[in-house]
Amino acid sequence: MAEPKFDVLTIGNAIVDVLAHAEDDFLVAEGLVKGSMRLIDGAEADRLYDHMGAAELISGGCAGNTAAGVASFGGSAAFIGKVADDELGRFFRHDMKALGIAFPTPPVTDGTPTARSMILITPDGERTMNTNLAACQELTPADIDKKTVVSAAITYLEGYLWDPPKAKEAFRVAAKIAHGAGRKVAITLSDSFCVDRFRDEFLELMRTGALDIVFANRHEVLSLYQTSDFETAIEALEREVPLAVVTMSEEGSMVLSGGERTLVPAALLERLVDLTGAGDQYAAGFLYGLSRGYAYDVCGRLGSLAAAEVISHIGARPLDSLKQIAGQAGLAA
Amino acid sequence: MAEPKFDVLTIGNAIVDVLAHAEDDFLVAEGLVKGSMRLIDGAEADRLYDHMGAAELISGGCAGNTAAGVASFGGSAAFIGKVADDELGRFFRHDMKALGIAFPTPPVTDGTPTARSMILITPDGERTMNTNLAACQELTPADIDKKTVVSAAITYLEGYLWDPPKAKEAFRVAAKIAHGAGRKVAITLSDSFCVDRFRDEFLELMRTGALDIVFANRHEVLSLYQTSDFETAIEALEREVPLAVVTMSEEGSMVLSGGERTLVPAALLERLVDLTGAGDQYAAGFLYGLSRGYAYDVCGRLGSLAAAEVISHIGARPLDSLKQIAGQAGLAA
Repeated sequence: MAEPKFDVLTIGNAIVDVLAHAEDDFLVAEGLVKGSMRLIDGAEADRLYDHMGAAELISGGCAGNTAAGVASFGGSAAFIGKVADDELGRFFRHDMKALGIAFPTPPVTDGTPTARSMILITPDGERTMNTNLAACQELTPADIDKKTVVSAAITYLEGYLWDPPKAKEAFRVAAKIAHGAGRKVAITLSDSFCVDRFRDEFLELMRTGALDIVFANRHEVLSLYQTSDFETAIEALEREVPLAVVTMSEEGSMVLSGGERTLVPAALLERLVDLTGAGDQYAAGFLYGLSRGYAYDVCGRLGSLAAAEVISHIGARPLDSLKQIAGQAGLAA
Repeated sequence: MAEPKFDVLTIGNAIVDVLAHAEDDFLVAEGLVKGSMRLIDGAEADRLYDHMGAAELISGGCAGNTAAGVASFGGSAAFIGKVADDELGRFFRHDMKALGIAFPTPPVTDGTPTARSMILITPDGERTMNTNLAACQELTPADIDKKTVVSAAITYLEGYLWDPPKAKEAFRVAAKIAHGAGRKVAITLSDSFCVDRFRDEFLELMRTGALDIVFANRHEVLSLYQTSDFETAIEALEREVPLAVVTMSEEGSMVLSGGERTLVPAALLERLVDLTGAGDQYAAGFLYGLSRGYAYDVCGRLGSLAAAEVISHIGARPLDSLKQIAGQAGLAA
């Protein structure tokens, strides 16, 4: 097995975030569930955009954000996801290139626009996402660049990929190629409603050995096993995958592997501005650490540092160098 | 004279800011002068964009930023400027609408793209701007919506409007309409290099009574009179216009009118992140105060508060309500 070229390849929906502040009243008037992600069509996207506040555009998407985090740690990252050949697509691609992330996926050219997620940030820092998948719907197995998958130590897939119908096939193909090359495959369950939509398929992936590593937050793992008892849920989870990582907001995270549980504290938080990207950056830190062979508790602490950085400002990708932050904390080189 | 419908109408280049962090080394390698604004063509814009870091897109442009500030104070604002009917143009227009700013200018439809300014923010918070005017070049006298000008207490024009050749004619038309309706006309000198380019024309505007109010920072007023002596420069300035406002960064600002000088302190600054928009927001606060009939020192303090808010974060438009900030400071209702 050749030395991997990439620490982490992430595969997911390629999305430009349209970030705006909103009052709680606005969510109520729009009938939106705070903290949730809902899928909307182009017409609803236009309607909501027309009603929401002044915005800023930042490249986003869970998997893209995680790749950005890995790069910020000094890791080598690649990303597979589908944008269009429009202004927002070029913007997304520019950011990938600027961050040194390989992005081998050709754009959609049939007029379907690049995906956008209207993210409403309430004064409590919570984010409510309204995503129009658009070009992301066009990700197919043909987009899974074999060379890239083979040369990545870990291929990380987002659960949201189950939403665009053709992407789940791409997901399975990628996992198969990765395992064929002796690499690891990781997934994030993305959100509890996503778990609701695809519970059986996610469990099947875990039970058939398609996944080596599962990332989930507390809500997602409860949803996965349809229980309100956290202990019941994590006991089930730790029996099903070689490595599971459960994030628990300010209570830190828990690494479950081979019957062992490692509790990792959350990092000290200077201020909470915008929760967008917390899970994505936690995964970035953990995966970077794992690809470099660090112990689980160090991987978890790298994840905590990255999550703390990203929620201290607007946007889902790190502004400060995670490599530097990790160095200052005495973790990683 | 009818009661004005708008407190302030601003006219300027309609620009989407492409904001990215950059190290000093990058400016040196690119041969860029820190803190300056340079005009670039589309090819150079593409080349620079290709080399710069991951970015975020925010609506900008000096006059647009000032209109956003006036609206944030609770004032009624209008804006005239030229975007294209492309994605960035729609983004700019959305933000205007979301902020409650009237924006009567039709878009360019000939394929010329919306203007962008690549703004590089160095670790010291200084911003270096690289602007491709594109659609802004198409602003003509036909775009000066007479009804809007007539119904604004103050029409505020940016000196940068002298750059696109046809816009200066629009500028003159707007000033004439405003004065014909008994309204006030203000200008910002925009930057010292802009003053260098158009010194004679700016002085002529002042000397022929086309301007009632002039905003300038220290560098601009020195450049206007080609002197290194600040006192000499402001003595000349106060003789030439009914009202001049000179901003002096952390030393505050000075209001010059009828031989009187009012010194206004800078507002307490929590942290300096990005200087972009400081002058634009100072003008917003001052003009809002003026349109509401406040004394010069109160106008200046409103300007200082707005400038302090905007340099405490990324982007050139206020994130927090300036109305609330002014209320907390015991200024304005």
